[in-house]
Amino acid sequence: MLERCDVLARCSEEPGRLTRRFASPALAEARELVAGWMREAGLEPRHDAVGNLVGRRDGPGRTLLLGSHLDTVRDAGRYDGPLGVLVALAAADRVRDRPLPFALEVAAFADEEGVRYGTAYLGSAVLAGRFEAAWLERRDADGVTMADAIRGWGGDPGAVAGPRRDDLLGYCEVHIEQGPVLDDAELPVAVVEAIAGQTRARATFTGTAAHAGTTPMEARRDALAAAAEWIGAVEAAGRGTAGLVATVGELAVEPGAANVVPGRVVASVDVRHADDAAREAAVRALRERALAAGAARGVEAGWEELQANPAVPCDPALTDRLADVAAAVTGAAVPRLASGAGHDAVMLSAVAPVAMLFVRCDGGVSHHPAEAVRAEDVAVALDVTTRLLEELAA
Amino acid sequence: MLERCDVLARCSEEPGRLTRRFASPALAEARELVAGWMREAGLEPRHDAVGNLVGRRDGPGRTLLLGSHLDTVRDAGRYDGPLGVLVALAAADRVRDRPLPFALEVAAFADEEGVRYGTAYLGSAVLAGRFEAAWLERRDADGVTMADAIRGWGGDPGAVAGPRRDDLLGYCEVHIEQGPVLDDAELPVAVVEAIAGQTRARATFTGTAAHAGTTPMEARRDALAAAAEWIGAVEAAGRGTAGLVATVGELAVEPGAANVVPGRVVASVDVRHADDAAREAAVRALRERALAAGAARGVEAGWEELQANPAVPCDPALTDRLADVAAAVTGAAVPRLASGAGHDAVMLSAVAPVAMLFVRCDGGVSHHPAEAVRAEDVAVALDVTTRLLEELAA
Repeated sequence: MLERCDVLARCSEEPGRLTRRFASPALAEARELVAGWMREAGLEPRHDAVGNLVGRRDGPGRTLLLGSHLDTVRDAGRYDGPLGVLVALAAADRVRDRPLPFALEVAAFADEEGVRYGTAYLGSAVLAGRFEAAWLERRDADGVTMADAIRGWGGDPGAVAGPRRDDLLGYCEVHIEQGPVLDDAELPVAVVEAIAGQTRARATFTGTAAHAGTTPMEARRDALAAAAEWIGAVEAAGRGTAGLVATVGELAVEPGAANVVPGRVVASVDVRHADDAAREAAVRALRERALAAGAARGVEAGWEELQANPAVPCDPALTDRLADVAAAVTGAAVPRLASGAGHDAVMLSAVAPVAMLFVRCDGGVSHHPAEAVRAEDVAVALDVTTRLLEELAA
Repeated sequence: MLERCDVLARCSEEPGRLTRRFASPALAEARELVAGWMREAGLEPRHDAVGNLVGRRDGPGRTLLLGSHLDTVRDAGRYDGPLGVLVALAAADRVRDRPLPFALEVAAFADEEGVRYGTAYLGSAVLAGRFEAAWLERRDADGVTMADAIRGWGGDPGAVAGPRRDDLLGYCEVHIEQGPVLDDAELPVAVVEAIAGQTRARATFTGTAAHAGTTPMEARRDALAAAAEWIGAVEAAGRGTAGLVATVGELAVEPGAANVVPGRVVASVDVRHADDAAREAAVRALRERALAAGAARGVEAGWEELQANPAVPCDPALTDRLADVAAAVTGAAVPRLASGAGHDAVMLSAVAPVAMLFVRCDGGVSHHPAEAVRAEDVAVALDVTTRLLEELAA
């Protein structure tokens, strides 16, 4: 599995670093490699309309779906996504000679990160029947529409917004944690109780640009001073509410000259919590704090909510089963975490019971070339996945 | 004078907005217009080695120098610089038939803003004997060295670092205030007591970029949260110390994505005060605050002092004389301000007693197309300048 992650990491759009966006030649190359490994594991690979690769082993009744995604962020690590696909494939290979009372599929989704079109979950949205036809008109940075990109690698944009899968027994995904909790606790795996809800908003502070030398402090309407007070409030909100994370990651200062009092600041804010009410209360409070920080300086504060996704609980029964198996494999109780990052399980929860197994990653580092996992933890994830298949089969 | 400011505003490097950098064709065009107006005012124009235009009326003994600069910032207003040149010319014209016991010169400096080469006061530095030969090697954004630029518009780079003027009786400059004090006080003019000293520094906050969804607050080393606390301290320092202005105008956040905890922030800080000790104490305190804001979050704070210019006092005797004349013209005492902005008087103070008259500008707006002055205030400035010439002659 780790060697295959290394091989896939060579499929990149950019020399010297790993970037593999939706429908890129690099993703097509990775998809081709994985299709070959699917055949070796006894699965029959096919492409769906958007370009997801799905390997299937027929069986009676409904279908158990495993998998993860093959696309990456820019300058990515090699485990976020591919590891889940390769663990699923290895588990399918391990049970290939055992009769199963269900069909088994391993999905290698074509887009989870959403880098190319600013949309997440393009791949799993198709299975969930949640692909919106309007997305096809979106253009990437080079002006290529999504419809053309899909056609360009053999997909069928006319069929992406089709019916949802109604044959799924469940969906189970292995993924690196992308956070430091398991590494800090020195544990190999955890199960995911819920994928946190997320609000993304844009706060805008509009004051007046002025000469930094000639404008007395009391005559200023300093947009950055207002934004700075608010950023402190965002940090304090995160620290003061258990389970809440709140982040200002982007900040644009205009005009942005050393000798000019800033006239305008635009800031992003990202707020997540597994409990929707807690998240919504925090967002309301932060909006108020932005207005107050502006008002104290004659700075007009604006607030635009860009996105608000509710938390997605994993399926309690399937998650308990996964936790029991993981405890049996590791010989200890496994933690139950909320996932602060989104995953394909968000989409698939609309059509199947979902469960996720998190694997420790070094230092919690992710979306970075330094992303790393331990071979023994991946072995645990494979054992857990195999055992889950066996138990479900039994 | 206002009509001539309008005419000069048409000399620009960029269509639709006023940008007139050192040694540009637009500046050469403006210089040619002003040379013609100098002849009309009875002055004999000449270019010096760097390209300053100086109009002279010979006389016995030493030389009284009036003037200001003709270059502008990008997307500038039309009064910052040119107004002082044109008021000086109008005053010279008014006294052209009166015998003077000194020579009179009006300077139209070729570079005060320093936009093209990142250096201020190129023009007045030549007169002050403070032009550094090493500057000639600097390149503009198109790779043109300063030496080539000077040659390109008829100057002589070999002669710019020549001897300083030793014949100056004094230097007096009219300039828009570039701040809101006169507009707020509803007064037309003020005299300048000193040009504030200025420290420019760069504060760098280095934490760790991390996933905004998966990194608990207590595991973060958020560079922007540290910077925000420090920006609040910069504002508080300015508000808490009379006469101090302190500004964070530039801020770069890396990696700068909505879903990533910032790993690095680089910020500018600009601190000015007419008293050097007060400025230096404030700078020391802000450096400590940067380190403390970083330390509270495991963020490494760096501090680099880029520039520290001491305050430049104007000449007390010449300034008193200017203030008396201004009081006589306006019928009221005139305020004495510290200039938060730099001016050519900074350089010329090395070779002459200097004085400055500030003219009210609407709302304190400067370095912006909306820069505006009132005709009646400009008339006051002309009367004050003329009266000063008459009194000095007497």
